[in-house]
Amino acid sequence: MLRTHTCGELRINNVNQDIVLCGWVQRVRDKGSVLWVDLRDRYGLTQLIFEEGVADAELMQRAAKLGREFVIKASGQVVERISKNDKISTGDIEIRVKSLEVLNPSKVPPFTIDDNTDGGDDLRMRYRYLDLRRNPVRKNLQLRHKMMQETRTYLDRQEFIEVETPVLIKSTPEGARDFVVPSRMNEGEFYALPQSPQTFKQLLMVSGFDRYFQIVKCFRDEDLRADRQPEFTQIDCEMTFVEREDILTTFEGMVRHLFKTVKGIEIRDIDRMSYDDAMQLYGSDKPDTRFGMQFVELNALAQGKGFNVFDSSELVVGLCAEGCATYSRKQLDALTEFVKKPQIGAKGLVYVKCNDDGSYKSSVDKFYSQENLAAWAEAFNAKRGDLLLVMSGEADHTRKALSELRLHMGSELDFRKPDDYKALWVLDFPLLEWDEDTQRFHAMHHPFTSPIPADLDKLESDPGKVKANAYDMVINGVEVGGGSIRIHDRAVQQRMFTQLGFSEDEAKRQFGFLMDAFEYGAPPHGGIAFGFDRLCSLFGGSESIRDFIAFPKNNSGRDVMIDSPSPIDQVQLNELGIKLK
Amino acid sequence: MLRTHTCGELRINNVNQDIVLCGWVQRVRDKGSVLWVDLRDRYGLTQLIFEEGVADAELMQRAAKLGREFVIKASGQVVERISKNDKISTGDIEIRVKSLEVLNPSKVPPFTIDDNTDGGDDLRMRYRYLDLRRNPVRKNLQLRHKMMQETRTYLDRQEFIEVETPVLIKSTPEGARDFVVPSRMNEGEFYALPQSPQTFKQLLMVSGFDRYFQIVKCFRDEDLRADRQPEFTQIDCEMTFVEREDILTTFEGMVRHLFKTVKGIEIRDIDRMSYDDAMQLYGSDKPDTRFGMQFVELNALAQGKGFNVFDSSELVVGLCAEGCATYSRKQLDALTEFVKKPQIGAKGLVYVKCNDDGSYKSSVDKFYSQENLAAWAEAFNAKRGDLLLVMSGEADHTRKALSELRLHMGSELDFRKPDDYKALWVLDFPLLEWDEDTQRFHAMHHPFTSPIPADLDKLESDPGKVKANAYDMVINGVEVGGGSIRIHDRAVQQRMFTQLGFSEDEAKRQFGFLMDAFEYGAPPHGGIAFGFDRLCSLFGGSESIRDFIAFPKNNSGRDVMIDSPSPIDQVQLNELGIKLK
Repeated sequence: MLRTHTCGELRINNVNQDIVLCGWVQRVRDKGSVLWVDLRDRYGLTQLIFEEGVADAELMQRAAKLGREFVIKASGQVVERISKNDKISTGDIEIRVKSLEVLNPSKVPPFTIDDNTDGGDDLRMRYRYLDLRRNPVRKNLQLRHKMMQETRTYLDRQEFIEVETPVLIKSTPEGARDFVVPSRMNEGEFYALPQSPQTFKQLLMVSGFDRYFQIVKCFRDEDLRADRQPEFTQIDCEMTFVEREDILTTFEGMVRHLFKTVKGIEIRDIDRMSYDDAMQLYGSDKPDTRFGMQFVELNALAQGKGFNVFDSSELVVGLCAEGCATYSRKQLDALTEFVKKPQIGAKGLVYVKCNDDGSYKSSVDKFYSQENLAAWAEAFNAKRGDLLLVMSGEADHTRKALSELRLHMGSELDFRKPDDYKALWVLDFPLLEWDEDTQRFHAMHHPFTSPIPADLDKLESDPGKVKANAYDMVINGVEVGGGSIRIHDRAVQQRMFTQLGFSEDEAKRQFGFLMDAFEYGAPPHGGIAFGFDRLCSLFGGSESIRDFIAFPKNNSGRDVMIDSPSPIDQVQLNELGIKLK
Repeated sequence: MLRTHTCGELRINNVNQDIVLCGWVQRVRDKGSVLWVDLRDRYGLTQLIFEEGVADAELMQRAAKLGREFVIKASGQVVERISKNDKISTGDIEIRVKSLEVLNPSKVPPFTIDDNTDGGDDLRMRYRYLDLRRNPVRKNLQLRHKMMQETRTYLDRQEFIEVETPVLIKSTPEGARDFVVPSRMNEGEFYALPQSPQTFKQLLMVSGFDRYFQIVKCFRDEDLRADRQPEFTQIDCEMTFVEREDILTTFEGMVRHLFKTVKGIEIRDIDRMSYDDAMQLYGSDKPDTRFGMQFVELNALAQGKGFNVFDSSELVVGLCAEGCATYSRKQLDALTEFVKKPQIGAKGLVYVKCNDDGSYKSSVDKFYSQENLAAWAEAFNAKRGDLLLVMSGEADHTRKALSELRLHMGSELDFRKPDDYKALWVLDFPLLEWDEDTQRFHAMHHPFTSPIPADLDKLESDPGKVKANAYDMVINGVEVGGGSIRIHDRAVQQRMFTQLGFSEDEAKRQFGFLMDAFEYGAPPHGGIAFGFDRLCSLFGGSESIRDFIAFPKNNSGRDVMIDSPSPIDQVQLNELGIKLK
């Protein structure tokens, strides 16, 4: 090694030792007769000192010429500092440098390599290798590493086997768009990159592998939103001879293990909630249950009193914001503005203040008596000092808008602390969703999800009512994982494909291998996949998954650092048997 | 769980317990009044017993109808067996079944699910999910799992951070052919799948990550040979502030850890050998050093004695096969036939028997006196009873042919025991190889490999003589890993690209991001990559990497199970902006 120690490990008990450090120059402070250099590496920061009289003139001069981000090797002696720095772990000592070697100089970096950098997003992405030098970014990737190792430790202990499934697979039109790869050896044919290893993990269950996992790259060629990446990572798992309860228990265990080992946190009980309840009580299939503020429906109490807006609404629904009766006109107006934003799209917001004196003040006093409003307050279980916020309109749309308002109020009231984690299983999703555009049912999860056994006979007679034997794990309002018990019976799988509008031929061409496999002793099985990038960002207390990916792509799917995608040679196109349009 | 135990865990101390097992029917033996079923899962085999009088008639009948590979759930009581089977871990007990449920029936499988199956390669690949049920195949993948976990454990302890590098990267014409991925969002442009994460791991070193690893899929669109796969897995590693010795030590440690934890073997000392020595002494850059039989060159002793074949040869070289002087005419003829095979291509083979009486008998007695042959024997350090085998011709070709003969003799003499492991570092490879076809130098490893420091100034004046600061790990004659100290200086990298025939513009377009990165404080670094599929097959004692891949492709790069690659829809092609030729 070029060094004897890292920049994070020297302490007071190393004083007088001769050591060698390597690292990057974070900062030079030149006072003429004495000069300090902060030397940085992945492990920490150590102060180097050059003193006139102790160091010779030539060494002083060379030290004075060091620039930011120079890579140097410094040999010297550990000495106790006169003025200690208790903010860094090496703050009791410094290195009296005896010899100095510049291993590589550096141009002035395009932005400062600091926790709070002056670099904008685009610049940092272009020079991602410099951005990765910053502590917050490096720590995110160290967290990711730790999460990977602990995920594997837990699953390995539970007898899961990590199996690598292929990346060059077959394109299937169901679901999102595939990335495809032209085959040179089979001209005119294409591989596809997997959107998930779904069918392969099911085949592994058919093979008797019993418990499988993989931390695996998946690919979706979708129009990218802010927080989508064309390639992303899943913790992909599958188990045999299980029922839903076994999967929930096993992966509650995994999530608890991760919180415990990575963050030192024992998380609270993991609740379970049906999809229907989640929608009704929170207006969302991924409610943030760190706080209450459950929805209360007011149709019975609020309709028929002459307030036309409510009377003509499918749903009147509200929530109670504890202690917010003191909100000013301005604050209430701001809430109304919030729900009227185009991305929320509500028409308005009704409020009822539960005053400290027992009276009520609302924006609809014209239509509702104090007794009416008292009945509302009772429905909400509201106390004096609370504020009721009520919306109305088409049911789904209104719930969604109120859900946004709930999250907004949760943030305003500081109920959504990033270091407070609350996990939840959402269960019993609909199996199928009606799609107006294509006038057919789509699988809400995917075509391999089993209906709950009791609903199997409704698959043809009332498909929209069939519940899936599916589950999502939601933490702090973020869906971090989802899965289901799978279909393992060829006939049921065929019925499912029929409901999804596949002809028998199409089903056979695309998934024949899986249907065939079901005829050779396929065991009951189920599984789950966690969005690993998302899980890391949740653990890291960030909303952006990009911060937890070493080399992310931008919103056009472009890596601006390596400048990819890019044109390829005509020779290459010829070999692949393709032409550009 | 549908079961209380697995098929591998019940023992004599479980007798009298009520248990539930799930698994696959391996075998049914129906003796009329008593019927046995061998039930199999990943963990083992347990015998079920159905006895007339104990089981009711209906249960007996249902048991009799069970077929091979049916998936069943059996509840019953653990009882002690009368005739025990000490070949299986559950052989002391059997299950007296009280109730039986067929979870899924099975068609008769197309080949037997047995250690020695009757299924041919093609059939087993088509029904890979059934092939994976066979113990030997499943054990290979369990070995692979164990090797992955232990690799990570070791590297994690050594402070390596696992970082996922992107799969959708940029095509570069250097090296093997890339698989490419048309971009829909950037029409006319393509991503490429990585042949290795080389440039990304170097950027991570520039970022100060210090120690990186990844077990990662890589892709090469080459014409496939028997043991090549278009997608394969590497253990990819890189370290900063190191010299060659540090890398060798670190990864000797990894290999020792794997042998110790996975196979319980302490391997012998890991020797080091220069590329030149390897070629001269073994005729191979990946010699099998489980046994000696080093080459001895005979030009000085064998030329000028009137034997024209030797006199006109660039090289006369041989080996000594201990104790083989007793070889019969027929055995010697077989060796000559062996070296004359087209894939070896030698013209002939000269032998010298060192007889027990001190005399010599050779195929060239006409040209060489007993004294001449005695001098040869002395050069070989041969004893009475040994056999010398000598070849001649153009030097490289002859060494290669003699290397094949050496391996052949090693096998014949049982020197190549699969459970004996001998690892070796081969060092100091040439940096560049002259390519006659393109009339230019190619990088023997890749363009980022550093010359050894002493040879740097020969890069322009005598490029063919420059040694690379590179190393390969060879175990039992198999190259399992290779790497190098990298170039970290922009000017040197530019000189290297120039030697490889890149114009400055080309170098910039393809690797500008890396060259730029070198200007912002790139530290000295180096790394290594192990071929993980190959390493697994070596540990598993097999020559075929395909046996250690869950879903391999065939020699045309085709997955015959899912039938991929395959044509895609015109709509998809249109969206991607490409046409078929």
